[in-house]
Amino acid sequence: MKSTMMQVPLSLNHFLERAKLYHPKVEIVSRMPDKSLHRHTYADFHRRAKGLAEALVKAGIQPGDRVATLMWNHYAHLECYFGIPAAGAVMHNLNLRLFPHDIAFIVNHAKDRFLIVDDVLLPLLAQFAKDVNFERIIVVPLTGKPVPRGYEDYEGFIGGATDDFKCVEVDENAPCGMCYTSGTTGSPKGVVYSHRSTVLHTLVAALPGGINVSGTDTVLPVVPMFHANAWGLPFVSTFVGAKQVFPGPHLDSESLLDLYQRERVTVTGGVPTIWLSLLQTLRANPGKYDLVPGMRMMVGGSAAPESLFRGFDEFGLEVGTAWGMTETSPLGTVSSLKPSMRALPKEEQYAFRIKQGMAAPLVEIRLVGDNGEVPWDGRSVGEIQVRGPWITGSYHDLPINESSFTADGWLRTGDVGCIDSEGFLQLTDRTKDLIKSGGEWISSVDLENAVMGHPAVLEASVIAVPHPRWAERPLAVVVLRPGMSATGEEIRDHLAKTFAKWQLPEGFAFVNEIPRTSTGKFLKTKLREMYKDWKWE
Amino acid sequence: MKSTMMQVPLSLNHFLERAKLYHPKVEIVSRMPDKSLHRHTYADFHRRAKGLAEALVKAGIQPGDRVATLMWNHYAHLECYFGIPAAGAVMHNLNLRLFPHDIAFIVNHAKDRFLIVDDVLLPLLAQFAKDVNFERIIVVPLTGKPVPRGYEDYEGFIGGATDDFKCVEVDENAPCGMCYTSGTTGSPKGVVYSHRSTVLHTLVAALPGGINVSGTDTVLPVVPMFHANAWGLPFVSTFVGAKQVFPGPHLDSESLLDLYQRERVTVTGGVPTIWLSLLQTLRANPGKYDLVPGMRMMVGGSAAPESLFRGFDEFGLEVGTAWGMTETSPLGTVSSLKPSMRALPKEEQYAFRIKQGMAAPLVEIRLVGDNGEVPWDGRSVGEIQVRGPWITGSYHDLPINESSFTADGWLRTGDVGCIDSEGFLQLTDRTKDLIKSGGEWISSVDLENAVMGHPAVLEASVIAVPHPRWAERPLAVVVLRPGMSATGEEIRDHLAKTFAKWQLPEGFAFVNEIPRTSTGKFLKTKLREMYKDWKWE
Repeated sequence: MKSTMMQVPLSLNHFLERAKLYHPKVEIVSRMPDKSLHRHTYADFHRRAKGLAEALVKAGIQPGDRVATLMWNHYAHLECYFGIPAAGAVMHNLNLRLFPHDIAFIVNHAKDRFLIVDDVLLPLLAQFAKDVNFERIIVVPLTGKPVPRGYEDYEGFIGGATDDFKCVEVDENAPCGMCYTSGTTGSPKGVVYSHRSTVLHTLVAALPGGINVSGTDTVLPVVPMFHANAWGLPFVSTFVGAKQVFPGPHLDSESLLDLYQRERVTVTGGVPTIWLSLLQTLRANPGKYDLVPGMRMMVGGSAAPESLFRGFDEFGLEVGTAWGMTETSPLGTVSSLKPSMRALPKEEQYAFRIKQGMAAPLVEIRLVGDNGEVPWDGRSVGEIQVRGPWITGSYHDLPINESSFTADGWLRTGDVGCIDSEGFLQLTDRTKDLIKSGGEWISSVDLENAVMGHPAVLEASVIAVPHPRWAERPLAVVVLRPGMSATGEEIRDHLAKTFAKWQLPEGFAFVNEIPRTSTGKFLKTKLREMYKDWKWE
Repeated sequence: MKSTMMQVPLSLNHFLERAKLYHPKVEIVSRMPDKSLHRHTYADFHRRAKGLAEALVKAGIQPGDRVATLMWNHYAHLECYFGIPAAGAVMHNLNLRLFPHDIAFIVNHAKDRFLIVDDVLLPLLAQFAKDVNFERIIVVPLTGKPVPRGYEDYEGFIGGATDDFKCVEVDENAPCGMCYTSGTTGSPKGVVYSHRSTVLHTLVAALPGGINVSGTDTVLPVVPMFHANAWGLPFVSTFVGAKQVFPGPHLDSESLLDLYQRERVTVTGGVPTIWLSLLQTLRANPGKYDLVPGMRMMVGGSAAPESLFRGFDEFGLEVGTAWGMTETSPLGTVSSLKPSMRALPKEEQYAFRIKQGMAAPLVEIRLVGDNGEVPWDGRSVGEIQVRGPWITGSYHDLPINESSFTADGWLRTGDVGCIDSEGFLQLTDRTKDLIKSGGEWISSVDLENAVMGHPAVLEASVIAVPHPRWAERPLAVVVLRPGMSATGEEIRDHLAKTFAKWQLPEGFAFVNEIPRTSTGKFLKTKLREMYKDWKWE
């Protein structure tokens, strides 16, 4: 027998049309380069995104063709998120924090036909323009100045829209977007999302046990729209009709706090380093900011220190964690405390809150060690492997490699963690971030979270540095809070309460800044290079 | 170019395994026929549902075969919800409130191979057993008494489970369940759900803007599991790991209120008549019941009167509406107030709260009148037509009929309503429930909701009765609250505040009870028959 259900493909176009039908007056607010606020509505968004789609089709873009974006987070980027797929094409967002030669490699590898670029990013484009060959370059005039000669004006490009353009419908497994990994090793690799994968990811991300977003929320993604689809927040927000607020190029704490307060933001997302800086600004300006009580701050990208959760708790703001990567769309796990955990005293809840949570619904997870799958006992560590409808099963135009995929078809993430008996994942270290000291493994992540728990420490990263006797020993690279001081000895005493002596950092390097990856993570490869000749005392 | 995403089919089996992995200790509580409470956990549920699947496969059930259930809402029915699909088979729940000859027709039409039946329902089975031919009949010993000779014991049947049975994986479009419509006209028609349709329906039903269910909820479906999948609540609850509470055969207000209080229920669902009766019991016993503040009571099946929303508001309980039918899995629309509506004074919110809300995400809706699609202006009335991945596109083993489906593939629901400029649907009448008086249409639903707003009225139904001069005139069939009185004249005066004179009921019939369909809706066909010879004054 057969099911009698209709065969209706999952499509981003449904989200686009739904936004117009049900939420035409809801606002989309964007911070412009001059710091002014640009406001329009879902009705505007719908008209303009469809105008973009129509213009792309008229310009000869065919289903599956790539249209690249080089943009900050703002209304026009959101139009690209939906307008490019509505043309049947593939939105390929370029990470503007990569080295120009890497961007050129990615553009050429993806065979991007058109580029849509912010006018304020034309100087970046100039750095790799000679190495790529876009057929057309369309410039978003964010500054309001005329678009330089030789480029097309985005407003003119989308301006000729008719009212009767129908979105191009493609198979639900057809591609709608792509993103390259910003891996610290090897060439960037392309992940290609489908309408199906994006729709399913959106449904799950919006769930109460997920990021929990509805039409009553106001969402501000700090995480860039050129990085893992800003964790899917633009798709989720548009889908449920939430008000959207975009920070443009202004990601400093003061600008963000101003937007949170002014626009009554209820949901936001970013990496730990952004939140550490924000927390510092809140502490330095007591009573200055009036934020929505209980604003949910999603943290991802890397494990966040417990001090971050405690810090924001003081301000009535709720940090929640998730784990994922470009290859996982990106929601792999998300933390939502179970009723049994919520019943615990607040102090005991932190042990669960800092973990990355359960596999997102429809995703399967397992940990694999040297001897196969490891048990969910909260101690056994293994590589995180995942499988699911929005997990990549290959890389664009590359052969399937056993270092990335298992024989039975799971993604090898390269991230390492343990899972407790409740099913909560806790990230420990990427394999290469573990420190092997005298034959024993030391977790750099545990150490750096503990170092950041010291009141005088603003940020810290712990790396393995070669040691003549122990092979490797941990070195803590520390940024102190402005106006505060601490010695390595004091920090070591602080750590000695929770770590065995042999696990303690062997040395401390005090610096003003820790180098970061393009997505704000500590750049441990760089640190290891900088300190490889560290003189142990 | 192709998407690089994994091809992972949507499957109910994922929900089943997830329940065990992440929520093994969460409870499933069932009211037994003797009113005692049966308690077990998701770990028990997982073991037993897989035991059922294994036993079915061993017994020769093949993918796509139908296994019927004739059961109340309880733990074993939940096991069937997942165990039958885990065998690759199709769970076909039989509506125990139908006439026995209709049940026999349905069993034969669906070609059900096995039956799983509550022991307390064996007398019902006896009424149609001679007209059907199940290969095996498996009896759930709810009373604890030995299963009568000639039947198999469910506990024995599932008891031989090994620990290594793997759920049967089928294509995501393969059938997992079926349900026959309980239409008041014509033969019942079969709707066959797929894994894909059920998974997608579940994701959307759980959304914050949907029924809003997470692992922190406790869910009690009053709506029967043999009727439109209990609105999908058992799937949603299992999926998110919510505690589940089942009322068994005890649907009287006292039993329900006792369960709500005792098990701290946060989400429940049922038809208006159930809630009207519950409200009466709450009012008759002030202070007796201590329910979870803000318990969400989903109402569906037919439009609910405003007095119901106001009534439960007095007790701090939140009524929410949805609309759907067996053909729509059943979520077609769901009401979730927009921020702009929440900002209105409470009194003004009722105008939106009583409506059936926006189309569920992934569902498209339109209203079609005699001259094509009607505008969303809050006044224009048309037949509700829908399209989406969990909407039926045909009926099992029947040719596609233009009275049920449009040429462009939408479902004609037979329900009638209008949609306002916010996109909120409001049910008016089924075409045949409209009253044509002197060439003008009168809405029986509007009238009966207003009649139920009179303080002395418990329930009311308004029907069209032939009239010598006006063709038809409205007759109100009224049940008064115990100990209260009202005359037709008084009720008419009450209505005259909001209705034109020609719209007012022409007559009033006071009765002790209004006949109902098997699913608790007022049986208007019966009423029209009963009062067709009404003598107008």
